[in-house]
Amino acid sequence: MKTDVQIAQEAKMLPITEVAAKLGLEEDDLVHYGKYKAKINLKVLERLKDKEDGKLILVTAINPTPAGEGKTTVNIGLSMALNKIGKKAITALREPSLGPSFGVKGGAAGGGYSQVVPMEDINLHFTGDFHAITTAHNLIAALLDNHLHQGNELNIDPRRILWKRVLDMNDRALRNIVVGLGGKPNGVPREDGFDITVASEIMAIFCLSRDLEDFKERVGNILVAYKYDGSPVYVRDLKAQGAVALLMKDAIHPNLVQTLENTPALIHGGPFANIAHGCNSMLATKLALKLADYTVTEAGFGADLGAEKFFDIKARFGDLKPDAAVIVATVRALKHHGGVKKDELGVENLEALAKGFENLAKHIENVNKFGVPAVVAINKFPTDTEAELDYLIKKTGELGSVAVLTEVWGKGGEGGVELAKKVVEVIETKPSNFKPLYDINESIKDKLHKIATEIYGADGVEYTKACEKRIKEIESLGLDKMPICMAKTQYSLSDDPTLLARPKGFKITVRDIRISAGAGFLVALTGEIMTMPGLPKVPAANNIDILENGEIVGLF
Amino acid sequence: MKTDVQIAQEAKMLPITEVAAKLGLEEDDLVHYGKYKAKINLKVLERLKDKEDGKLILVTAINPTPAGEGKTTVNIGLSMALNKIGKKAITALREPSLGPSFGVKGGAAGGGYSQVVPMEDINLHFTGDFHAITTAHNLIAALLDNHLHQGNELNIDPRRILWKRVLDMNDRALRNIVVGLGGKPNGVPREDGFDITVASEIMAIFCLSRDLEDFKERVGNILVAYKYDGSPVYVRDLKAQGAVALLMKDAIHPNLVQTLENTPALIHGGPFANIAHGCNSMLATKLALKLADYTVTEAGFGADLGAEKFFDIKARFGDLKPDAAVIVATVRALKHHGGVKKDELGVENLEALAKGFENLAKHIENVNKFGVPAVVAINKFPTDTEAELDYLIKKTGELGSVAVLTEVWGKGGEGGVELAKKVVEVIETKPSNFKPLYDINESIKDKLHKIATEIYGADGVEYTKACEKRIKEIESLGLDKMPICMAKTQYSLSDDPTLLARPKGFKITVRDIRISAGAGFLVALTGEIMTMPGLPKVPAANNIDILENGEIVGLF
Repeated sequence: MKTDVQIAQEAKMLPITEVAAKLGLEEDDLVHYGKYKAKINLKVLERLKDKEDGKLILVTAINPTPAGEGKTTVNIGLSMALNKIGKKAITALREPSLGPSFGVKGGAAGGGYSQVVPMEDINLHFTGDFHAITTAHNLIAALLDNHLHQGNELNIDPRRILWKRVLDMNDRALRNIVVGLGGKPNGVPREDGFDITVASEIMAIFCLSRDLEDFKERVGNILVAYKYDGSPVYVRDLKAQGAVALLMKDAIHPNLVQTLENTPALIHGGPFANIAHGCNSMLATKLALKLADYTVTEAGFGADLGAEKFFDIKARFGDLKPDAAVIVATVRALKHHGGVKKDELGVENLEALAKGFENLAKHIENVNKFGVPAVVAINKFPTDTEAELDYLIKKTGELGSVAVLTEVWGKGGEGGVELAKKVVEVIETKPSNFKPLYDINESIKDKLHKIATEIYGADGVEYTKACEKRIKEIESLGLDKMPICMAKTQYSLSDDPTLLARPKGFKITVRDIRISAGAGFLVALTGEIMTMPGLPKVPAANNIDILENGEIVGLF
Repeated sequence: MKTDVQIAQEAKMLPITEVAAKLGLEEDDLVHYGKYKAKINLKVLERLKDKEDGKLILVTAINPTPAGEGKTTVNIGLSMALNKIGKKAITALREPSLGPSFGVKGGAAGGGYSQVVPMEDINLHFTGDFHAITTAHNLIAALLDNHLHQGNELNIDPRRILWKRVLDMNDRALRNIVVGLGGKPNGVPREDGFDITVASEIMAIFCLSRDLEDFKERVGNILVAYKYDGSPVYVRDLKAQGAVALLMKDAIHPNLVQTLENTPALIHGGPFANIAHGCNSMLATKLALKLADYTVTEAGFGADLGAEKFFDIKARFGDLKPDAAVIVATVRALKHHGGVKKDELGVENLEALAKGFENLAKHIENVNKFGVPAVVAINKFPTDTEAELDYLIKKTGELGSVAVLTEVWGKGGEGGVELAKKVVEVIETKPSNFKPLYDINESIKDKLHKIATEIYGADGVEYTKACEKRIKEIESLGLDKMPICMAKTQYSLSDDPTLLARPKGFKITVRDIRISAGAGFLVALTGEIMTMPGLPKVPAANNIDILENGEIVGLF
């Protein structure tokens, strides 16, 4: 069997100019990064502003399991399948983070015969967007520490600085550091730390902005610290937003690449799916809607986190109207939710499947709550039995939805044709009545209560004392009228990763709320969220190499 | 009077494909980064390997002064002037560092009518080379700290780690830090620090490598730490060099841009000129020599540091044969060397000029010591008097060299035509007999003695006790047969920045020697070398902006 990188390197890529031409784009609309990557100038979005949007399909999933579901693979495969059945489709994806490539082996650009290419570039520096974000983020940090050093006119309390530094690297030694050591010429000593670049609020803002001006304004709104008197310090107080915007002048334009079957792919931005909203950039999505009849996009983790945030944050801010959601599941993953151990997932077990199905059922129910019709994609595995697949199809049907088998990993677009047809049928026959779950003007607690009870199936929400205090502070700053971005374990509908399938009789505990005033949301923390990964005992980097003939080994 | 950025934005740039075509390059030789930047695939160097090299002109200068000399401006202007007189010329320059752009106002891509464009891109992310270097450097750091964390099989002494981290940012608070805090899951606590990216040894290696394989091998040779038993730890012990090379697979190809007059410019790499050798990449220089009849390149600081390192390190490693050196000086700067205060530099002062001329005289003498003929370029200022200029021309002539007036800042290539003619004449009539100053197999002290006495005019070299010990250590590691890279103040021929003109009766004190085993040189430290700049009280970033119409303000 071929590896992902072997399949990718055998791909017959079209020059990106030809891929762009399929979308009606001309040479002057593109900024080339080599032969197979380009940025699409945002003036295209302006030019097409009166054109009607295409259909928007969100690919989401059940709560992820170690068994693997293949959400990105389905996303890519579905876009290729739509093209196969004569529809003009685009896939819109997140850019992968570089750092993790050197940790545990595994790329983030699909898999098998459903990949985006050139995958080695997409997984490394790509067009430099993340490097621009790293630089922009760290410029704010440098300006802040310089402000402390140069007399601290703003009276910033060095104990209450919220803005850390970032690197696109898995580097646990930088999680907790002390900076400014070495005496007077070398700054003011204080506690600090590094997050990975995708966790930067700059990334979240980048992915929610409507243009560079909007980006600049949002960056100015970032809350970076408190003064000794407790009042807030924003980026605009440091006069950093103009320089930050300049650093992002190229990055803001969406990136065009292609799938293994030459379907256009917009890959742009990639915020964390816990402390941020986990979707590709708003601009890429909006551009895709203008350029194609069907845009297939995705959100991080399962539907409880990813789809909820896509609907309540991204779609709300961007005035998007999702037409359908595809929920990806596998028989193996559902059996895992039903309590089956990893080495027994290949054995037929209808009882466990029935229990695990409750997880999928809840996600179907949730998507429908937003007024969006759902189609279930069952990524087929050789060990799946007839009886198991029949059960899933039947039970999904009983919920008024439909489950379709897909084989996009092994067969590319061909393996997703049935799914594509069903999705088109659903969009044409079941109009979406999309609306967000809550109104942003509701209180913080009301918003959290709705998410917890209606989406997670919790009995309610509990708050730590610290969090109660934080809520009052947020209200006093007038920052409470923003959507909620849940930072919760992705493995369970609850905030306890061990509660699989469809837990009942639980409450969610919100421990703290972070203010992402630039991004425009409040991050509700229900547990420890790791924002700087580490490397494993034997990092993938040890086996990564580029040979004299240019062949890349060990990366994927 | 127009600002640099105004002049640059009014430039009539040619599509980079046309600039490349002038050099005989075809579409397939280029990797585009937008319309006006491209990388030239290194396969071109392989293809042209049997073609005779063009002539190599090094632009260097007197010891720099606050009055400014305009070395890069002359470099660019001379390349344009050579084209004006019908010669096929290329300018080869260093890439500017991004970080300092946000500190003190001032770009690093020439000035006036002698600039390389698009200057805003060149001064910001350009083609991402420096970001690749930052990432590669920090990957090694992450792997090293991960090694400590995962059991420290190599027995690395955390008190003796030489490899810091880097960012392309002026950020003094990161100079001295403590990492690995927060308990067991978060690494091993130790002292650390960040340098600016251009100070990374990866940068020096990048600029001295012959290809990616050579780069990889050199990276493996970097000395990163010592074990508890005092034995050395190299990057190859961490198995990082393959991953580092992969990260540099695109960066290794030289960047092509153009001057304001559409002369091809290769801008690639930019190592520090104190702890490293301060020249653009070897690959860019070698490629330029194949593509043009005249390559005009430069080295950092004055000729005592820049030219000496260009000759003794870069030319030696690359088997380059410099044909001529242009030494840039101004009347004002020489008067500064003669003791005149800044606000009196506009007043005729032949006595001070005569004293300051000694600085220039020594640099002419030094260049000749390497067997290379020298031409002096006097960058003309409105306040220069006839008598002063005549004096310089006469005295330079008495040394067997020639001084030519240039006005490239105000007039572009036209202002350098006389210089171009003279340089061509010198190259055609005075064959270079280039050879390095010392043999690498001489002892460390012998090599240092030659540099100090013959180039600086010192009476000798003194060593601290620590340095004596270090020399023994280097010899015991078998790393003493490498060239010396002097880290000395750029303001004086001596190691005391206040001794201007041509100091006599002094000794150089070498305090320590750093081992750059990957780059392949030993760095002799004669004073405190700042490897992470800070931001000023009012950083340029505060006034930098990109307006809604795309106009960039405050950057230059």
